[in-house]
Amino acid sequence: MSPTAGPGEARRGRAVTACLLIIGNEILSGRTQDKNLAYIGQGLNDLGIRLTEVRVIPDVEAVIVDTLNEVRRGFDYVFTTGGIGPTHDDITADCVAKAFGLPLTVNPRARAILAAHYPAGELTEARLRMARTPEGATLIENPVSKAPGFRVENVFVMAGIPAVMQAMFESLKHSLVGGKPLRSRTVKVEMGESFVAAGLAAVQDGHPGVEIGSYPFNREGVFGTRLVLRSTEEGELAQAAAALDAMLLGLGVEGVWEEGPENAPPGRQSA
Amino acid sequence: MSPTAGPGEARRGRAVTACLLIIGNEILSGRTQDKNLAYIGQGLNDLGIRLTEVRVIPDVEAVIVDTLNEVRRGFDYVFTTGGIGPTHDDITADCVAKAFGLPLTVNPRARAILAAHYPAGELTEARLRMARTPEGATLIENPVSKAPGFRVENVFVMAGIPAVMQAMFESLKHSLVGGKPLRSRTVKVEMGESFVAAGLAAVQDGHPGVEIGSYPFNREGVFGTRLVLRSTEEGELAQAAAALDAMLLGLGVEGVWEEGPENAPPGRQSA
Repeated sequence: MSPTAGPGEARRGRAVTACLLIIGNEILSGRTQDKNLAYIGQGLNDLGIRLTEVRVIPDVEAVIVDTLNEVRRGFDYVFTTGGIGPTHDDITADCVAKAFGLPLTVNPRARAILAAHYPAGELTEARLRMARTPEGATLIENPVSKAPGFRVENVFVMAGIPAVMQAMFESLKHSLVGGKPLRSRTVKVEMGESFVAAGLAAVQDGHPGVEIGSYPFNREGVFGTRLVLRSTEEGELAQAAAALDAMLLGLGVEGVWEEGPENAPPGRQSA
Repeated sequence: MSPTAGPGEARRGRAVTACLLIIGNEILSGRTQDKNLAYIGQGLNDLGIRLTEVRVIPDVEAVIVDTLNEVRRGFDYVFTTGGIGPTHDDITADCVAKAFGLPLTVNPRARAILAAHYPAGELTEARLRMARTPEGATLIENPVSKAPGFRVENVFVMAGIPAVMQAMFESLKHSLVGGKPLRSRTVKVEMGESFVAAGLAAVQDGHPGVEIGSYPFNREGVFGTRLVLRSTEEGELAQAAAALDAMLLGLGVEGVWEEGPENAPPGRQSA
């Protein structure tokens, strides 16, 4: 079993895994709030790929190269965001080339895309930086601001600006091969998680093929908990949801089932 | 020079570094948006500690233990968020104990805190889980919901809920020893970064002790760029800011200096 696989995956074959590298000092300093992780995590899950690790690393060449070489061997897919613009601190393309031992050259197709985008004579040296890729890389289309991302083997290199990253992610999705998507059901209860902890552990023990998470929240003074069931198998999910609902009713609690009415166990209302 | 140190730090002595481990499937799946990274990154910087890596990892024991053992040796400080509640999927305390080869026991002080907090007879087995620490751990006070975090050597274990994490971070700050805080100045220009790229690279070359970052943004159709100067040395920062401002004026651009009026170069207005 892969150390990052969820319950039940050992007997169903290994999950397809991915790692995201968020590259940029501005994320680490707290100046910029990352908005790409959640988009990529959800998008990959829809394709049956599990985002099982994320690293945020600084704009330091040795760190980026070493991290790339570690994670591209440890995960099926690696995605990077950030560091592919026209300025001196955009060093991701250089680092990917170093990690793979490839020369970094101006990609003719990327150059043609930029030449068609800018007015005649305005494809400056700085802008031409954005046409550089490791030799042999496949481009990732960027319908928003044109300068493309690129792929080398299992590593997909994208921009950091969320609108551009999202457009690139949509462009590259067709080239990913996933397994079964992880499905989930969520029930919300208006009580702290310690009230349901013992019963929840019993439901987990009875349904080892379903991953059960408990996520407390505190909104405007109301303490509550979301209980989330996850599995690639619809049948196991339904059984665990019924068992969880019965456990809650046994505690005198009517949980509210979220994520669409089709998710409530038979005979129970959903949000 | 540490691979994660910024420019200029080699000759001033090594920077004090930190790594944050965000533990939780719900962050990786995109269900929950992390709000702790930015708070911790900024808080550490104020203390002269550089957050130089963040990893988001799943609720899987082997992954948490291995990652803890890697990063606690590679960074001066390690902070963790998530996985210290009362339910079966809260396994961070168990993992920290395993990583350090320590027994996990009910901490008498933590037990006393919880016993004083809950009504008589309501310190259930599930709640008592939150009093377990690796033997010899120092507690981190939690004024919000009482169940404490804890510290073992250079590893600080905190809750995932932002309000609780922030209270714990404020409680533990006094025990951290940092270096010089990284100071920054920011100028905003309403143009894409490719217009300033060449001039910016020249300013960077002329001020190797200052780290210069360029962060494009696109708000309501306006393309702009924030140029950020960072250094522990106030004098070098002021010189680089003056050089950057002169470069922009040479391009016919009056940048707007942000982060307080004291940051604008002499004779120039700030936001």
